[in-house]
Amino acid sequence: MLNDLVEILNQIRVKNPLIHQITNYVTVNDCANVTLAVGASPAMADDEVEVEEFVNIASSLLINIGTLNKNIKNSIIKAVKKANELEVPVVLDPVGVGASKFRKDFVEELLKQSSISSIRGNISEIKSILNLSSNTKGADASKEDLESIDNTVNIAKELANKLGLVVAITGEVDVISDGKRVVAIKNGNHLLPQITGTGCMCSSLVASYCGTSKDKIFEATILGVITMGIAGEIAYEKSKNSGLGTFHKELFNSVGNFNEEILKQKSNFKKIM
Amino acid sequence: MLNDLVEILNQIRVKNPLIHQITNYVTVNDCANVTLAVGASPAMADDEVEVEEFVNIASSLLINIGTLNKNIKNSIIKAVKKANELEVPVVLDPVGVGASKFRKDFVEELLKQSSISSIRGNISEIKSILNLSSNTKGADASKEDLESIDNTVNIAKELANKLGLVVAITGEVDVISDGKRVVAIKNGNHLLPQITGTGCMCSSLVASYCGTSKDKIFEATILGVITMGIAGEIAYEKSKNSGLGTFHKELFNSVGNFNEEILKQKSNFKKIM
Amino acid sequence: MLNDLVEILNQIRVKNPLIHQITNYVTVNDCANVTLAVGASPAMADDEVEVEEFVNIASSLLINIGTLNKNIKNSIIKAVKKANELEVPVVLDPVGVGASKFRKDFVEELLKQSSISSIRGNISEIKSILNLSSNTKGADASKEDLESIDNTVNIAKELANKLGLVVAITGEVDVISDGKRVVAIKNGNHLLPQITGTGCMCSSLVASYCGTSKDKIFEATILGVITMGIAGEIAYEKSKNSGLGTFHKELFNSVGNFNEEILKQKSNFKKIM
Repeated sequence: MLNDLVEILNQIRVKNPLIHQITNYVTVNDCANVTLAVGASPAMADDEVEVEEFVNIASSLLINIGTLNKNIKNSIIKAVKKANELEVPVVLDPVGVGASKFRKDFVEELLKQSSISSIRGNISEIKSILNLSSNTKGADASKEDLESIDNTVNIAKELANKLGLVVAITGEVDVISDGKRVVAIKNGNHLLPQITGTGCMCSSLVASYCGTSKDKIFEATILGVITMGIAGEIAYEKSKNSGLGTFHKELFNSVGNFNEEILKQKSNFKKIM
Repeated sequence: MLNDLVEILNQIRVKNPLIHQITNYVTVNDCANVTLAVGASPAMADDEVEVEEFVNIASSLLINIGTLNKNIKNSIIKAVKKANELEVPVVLDPVGVGASKFRKDFVEELLKQSSISSIRGNISEIKSILNLSSNTKGADASKEDLESIDNTVNIAKELANKLGLVVAITGEVDVISDGKRVVAIKNGNHLLPQITGTGCMCSSLVASYCGTSKDKIFEATILGVITMGIAGEIAYEKSKNSGLGTFHKELFNSVGNFNEEILKQKSNFKKIM
Repeated sequence: MLNDLVEILNQIRVKNPLIHQITNYVTVNDCANVTLAVGASPAMADDEVEVEEFVNIASSLLINIGTLNKNIKNSIIKAVKKANELEVPVVLDPVGVGASKFRKDFVEELLKQSSISSIRGNISEIKSILNLSSNTKGADASKEDLESIDNTVNIAKELANKLGLVVAITGEVDVISDGKRVVAIKNGNHLLPQITGTGCMCSSLVASYCGTSKDKIFEATILGVITMGIAGEIAYEKSKNSGLGTFHKELFNSVGNFNEEILKQKSNFKKIM
């Protein structure tokens, strides 16, 4: 597994894939910058008249519903359809999916009519997609929704199997499954949820790595989550005596400086199935 | 008064209230991050089909018209109506209200048909709402509009009385009134207006504190303005030999590190009525 | 030439011109902050019902099509028409113009029906406007489009002559022409394209300087490009041992601290025609 991750990591800066992202206006700047920092190239076009042309030149497509609205909804549907036609990997970040009927219905429709490669969300979001009883606190996971690792593993596996895709549930321990295999990741830091968009950025990293090869979606998703986690750890070390503003800035330093050596030295994951 | 402020400050990190913000796309990321830094949780949904559901789970609602448009206008009207029904406090930041008929008419309509808890603006914006002759320079206060402290106090009191809410006029000296009481605050720094969105962030802080208790709007507004002012002072000290980029980053460090001790040591306000 | 640049630089902090920017939501915060840092004042209103009122009080207008959509399109047309009536300089940043028919058609229409003062783009964008064969990688220049300095000079001159405006092609060497005169600039740093929006910010700087005098568009454009380039050089020196997050922050420090002495000491440009 580690060898696969190393290979993807080393390819991204060579291939510099274009990652088309239809996302929210809260964290879009950070998402574009983290995409550049990891070695890919972002394109954030979102009008329905042009998204297909951007998908056409993209190596992967990221859909993030953080500030979903009626216009973006149409753009997403067109872009994902085009991506499916061209076999461009599609990553979905179902931000706050449980918080409104609008988001819930949209994600349900999208998952029914199209093929998604990888979903990254918190436990509240993933449970909501599975129609498990869940709470919501906007874009953040609700404390009541936290599950034991065993339950989280079962939930990830269940959704992955049901939809035939890779599911990443990020939290204190991250769990990633393609339906058969399951990996648990212990990288990360308690400050990550204190900066808006670290979930969104994690999804941008997943989409960036997915842009290097459509056959390694499981590994690309794992590497995206590990990259964000390690970035959080290093940023914490560098900002301990300063605060959240410094931590935020150091996240970009860490992603930009991320390499094979750091991956080998700091990654903390385990294949548990 | 100081004891009330201390109480709100200590409650916010315990209650971690959800603050629904319908705001502008220029400063939205900074607003979300300052909300997290002070101990609350932001939700920035703005499509009219879902804003009511977000108000439903929110502890306060912030309306910021920095990039008002026709879609957002409808979302604001629905969200505020819902907030009024549920008695969720509503904070208004009337960004650049004097700069266009569109903004002027909208704020007038909003104030007529709904109940707002607290308004925070610069002197040009507050004078424009009162239909006093005012100038405008986009989102910034015009130099010609600056008034003596006595006049500023009268203007704040007049608007507070007229509308039955709390008014905060921020500037070199900040003046806050609920119509009877008036507090003047001398915290702050000359660099704050050189970063876009420090007014917006101040309003997010006010809304965050208002989310801890609907009965302490006057105190929550004062604490929001003091927090931003002290953050500006500390950020200035830490960035004096660097510049605006460092100052911007240090604002988030300062808000994230803000606590009772710093409040007691650095706050500089006076009840003048 | 250097004297002209010094004069503009010294005037901007005295005049503090209001720069109306209709731009994209990816980089809008950085564009507003760089405008403040250089000594101007930003206004980012973009609804068609109010843009004319903002142009009315603005000293220049910047159009950036980074996330063009149908609503913004109408706002741009109205704003530019008003600016032309009032002889307010208009700067165009044709972000990713070659990436979609929507952008291509819109820029063509805009250039046909209105008067633009200055265009700043990368080589792919400028070639696309000239209908020269060009590639596109979203908002970034394509490697295949890179030209020798001689060809770049010819392309800049040709477009400047054809449209009767100033053209700035930014890249490793920046080339700026008003159709007769040509200046080449060697300031800049290889990290600038690794932060999203450094092109957009450069255009905001051009628009800011254009706001000091409508008779010095060529010089204002040169100074905008030099300012961004030197900021990149200084930011690189200050962030060498840190990374992209620090580099990003230092860009704002550098623009905020930019002055006559730094300009004289570090500018590296040559009038080649």
